Amino acid sequence: MDRTAKPEALQGLIEKFEDRTARVGILGLGYVGIPLAIAIAREGFPVLGFDILKERTEQINRGESPIKHFSDEDIAEILAAGFEATTEFNRSGECDALIICVPTPLYGSREPDLSFVRATMDVIAPHFRAGQLLSLESTTWPGTTREVLLPYVEGAGRMAGEDFFLVYSPEREDPGNSEFTTRTIPKVAGGLTENCLAAGLALYSAFVDTVVSVSSTEAAELVKLVENIYRAVNIGLANEMKIVADAMALDIFEVIDAAKTKPFGFDAYYPGPGIGGHCIPVDPFYLTWKAREFGIHTRFIELAGEINASMPQYVVDKLVEALNAAGKPLNGARVLVLGVAYKRDMDDMRESPSVLVMERLRDRGADVDYSDPNVPVFPAMRSHRFDLASVELTAENIARYDAVMLLTDHSDFDYELIRRNSAVLVDTRGKFHRDGGVVRA
Amino acid sequence: MDRTAKPEALQGLIEKFEDRTARVGILGLGYVGIPLAIAIAREGFPVLGFDILKERTEQINRGESPIKHFSDEDIAEILAAGFEATTEFNRSGECDALIICVPTPLYGSREPDLSFVRATMDVIAPHFRAGQLLSLESTTWPGTTREVLLPYVEGAGRMAGEDFFLVYSPEREDPGNSEFTTRTIPKVAGGLTENCLAAGLALYSAFVDTVVSVSSTEAAELVKLVENIYRAVNIGLANEMKIVADAMALDIFEVIDAAKTKPFGFDAYYPGPGIGGHCIPVDPFYLTWKAREFGIHTRFIELAGEINASMPQYVVDKLVEALNAAGKPLNGARVLVLGVAYKRDMDDMRESPSVLVMERLRDRGADVDYSDPNVPVFPAMRSHRFDLASVELTAENIARYDAVMLLTDHSDFDYELIRRNSAVLVDTRGKFHRDGGVVRA
Repeated sequence: MDRTAKPEALQGLIEKFEDRTARVGILGLGYVGIPLAIAIAREGFPVLGFDILKERTEQINRGESPIKHFSDEDIAEILAAGFEATTEFNRSGECDALIICVPTPLYGSREPDLSFVRATMDVIAPHFRAGQLLSLESTTWPGTTREVLLPYVEGAGRMAGEDFFLVYSPEREDPGNSEFTTRTIPKVAGGLTENCLAAGLALYSAFVDTVVSVSSTEAAELVKLVENIYRAVNIGLANEMKIVADAMALDIFEVIDAAKTKPFGFDAYYPGPGIGGHCIPVDPFYLTWKAREFGIHTRFIELAGEINASMPQYVVDKLVEALNAAGKPLNGARVLVLGVAYKRDMDDMRESPSVLVMERLRDRGADVDYSDPNVPVFPAMRSHRFDLASVELTAENIARYDAVMLLTDHSDFDYELIRRNSAVLVDTRGKFHRDGGVVRA
Repeated sequence: MDRTAKPEALQGLIEKFEDRTARVGILGLGYVGIPLAIAIAREGFPVLGFDILKERTEQINRGESPIKHFSDEDIAEILAAGFEATTEFNRSGECDALIICVPTPLYGSREPDLSFVRATMDVIAPHFRAGQLLSLESTTWPGTTREVLLPYVEGAGRMAGEDFFLVYSPEREDPGNSEFTTRTIPKVAGGLTENCLAAGLALYSAFVDTVVSVSSTEAAELVKLVENIYRAVNIGLANEMKIVADAMALDIFEVIDAAKTKPFGFDAYYPGPGIGGHCIPVDPFYLTWKAREFGIHTRFIELAGEINASMPQYVVDKLVEALNAAGKPLNGARVLVLGVAYKRDMDDMRESPSVLVMERLRDRGADVDYSDPNVPVFPAMRSHRFDLASVELTAENIARYDAVMLLTDHSDFDYELIRRNSAVLVDTRGKFHRDGGVVRA
């Protein structure tokens, strides 16, 4: 291919990215879309944000950050630079680049739920025009961009790689990671054609230091899954090692901390009460589902899923044992759960194992409360309901419970206060020494 | 415990370590014992090396290194400093510290074979004396030091922690790793008692920069297993991902290389024709065996073992397909295997998957040769036999084969020469681009 003979549409688009005049549309203003909008707007691009939730777009347009780890100042800054949030998806036609950052969850059957992606495509496709770039950032199975997105794009005289450009570039956001920003996390991109990739590189390299191109959208899709499968499997392995160590009366946290001193060939993952968030419990099964089409059973993913999913029950069993040793049944016991967000120092409760633990405790007759400095009131969730507010952690409050369970190890917790005042203390995060009556779970 | 009131024996031992007068005995002069002997002798200690193989001790005493990645100069240096290798284990009584570095393989049934450890204890126990430190470095199941070694030590008026000191400190040698040395790799140690640990710390901190103490010998034993289980599982996962990617016509090496650009939360492991060496295929099953005693099935270890063990057949199947596409059966085909050592740039053939591949090829009627710059003649092995010498890699030699299989990617190989002259080229290491007729396996 003669690389100098770029089609006119590509040439025009690249120039708009180079001089920062390209209008960029972010579709989905959540944990991925918000930091992306901030990074692109800061680079000087006009950015338009789309979301289906009117409350969210209004909140943002008022200058309020919808996400804990971004400040109102961050939002005010991009509003001042011309950013606007809207629910009017027909305005997508105004944009030169469209980046889809909508959720890709699982159905209850653990099959991919691409409904948010499809719904987005349904509302924006009528407004596609020549010269646009469309990038999907949502995690998904290898083949999605070509099989699901391309049919929306082609037709009406449009051809991918000639007058419309289609790329897949997986998000790598790590909420709460202060070491890296959207700019400094290398970004992987794959294009449907070489011209598509060229358009994608022109967009992303404008605001990301390192863009890593791969040979196809499918390769880029698999990259993201492999990253998260690695995490799911290693957390599963840590959980299995916890079970073994516990049976041998050894402290798995001590063992992992010592193993971590090996300066090569070991990466520390820790056990916990289960896995949460929108990625690790979900993404791996996108590959499991697609692999089935090829007659392949993804056994590591299944095993990790099974072991990780068994952890909420495992830690509940440990609590039952600990209460039993104190002569009490779980039924009727007052239990205080510490930490309901799925991750340390976050307020995000998606797929949080704490919620699963609380439900199990409640189902077995316990009187459950929680304390979480980042979640003052238990929020409305799709399939969980608790009418609770966070209990303030005072010596007196802690002492009123038959048992305290540490599930998410926020750094705001006063661990010494907790240790001194808990009647029974079950620790799923290795924050307390095993001696002193603390039960490891 | 009053830490100042050290028993006299401990005090005396610590002083000998501090002034480098302690005589240190290394039991087993192999991949672990040789670098250890060098590091300790360099620190100024008188070192005595024990091995059951007379040829090996004579070779060393002549100034010849028995291991490729240590030079004759290394050996000459420690001989000049007073080092001596001997087969006379009764001389162990001369030593203040004894470090056991013998192999801990598996029986065919995948059960721990501790016979080398027991045989060593049998011959040295009669010469134990008050004031000695005994350290086990061989990888083994949690409980070995206490259950197997301690009974040899105690009795005859000796008591561990009072007049005899017993520790477990796992070796972390990584042959061929030029970034780290015995001194700079942090060393984990656990003692049978607090005094035992104190003695161990005094020895190891004399020649290792960072010694990490853990609370028991069992914890230290599990640390080493967790490190190697992590590797076995992640290589197994990479092999499973290879199978999935291959079915989807994607290049797993491209995918892993792109995933590796994520600056956190991902550690790259690569697929291959199986796993080799004395650690990764063996050690995890020490935990599997011991966990059974506690009613626990180590599922990640079993799955990794199964997938990794299936890889030699997987790559043979790929060769059969490739030959078939060229209209040839494997039976009667001339096949050249590149790399028989288990690891890049090493000469170590222990558990090498290349040998398993060669056997499968031979069993199915292929005429097999090999080329390996580090293994000029196929050595005598316990359960494998090939009367072969390494084929020189010339254009003419390569062209004489129906197929060439890259199994170990030594850096000495001329990959361009190989690519240009191979009729059929099967690449298990991702060294060649997929295009150009190269078959990935």
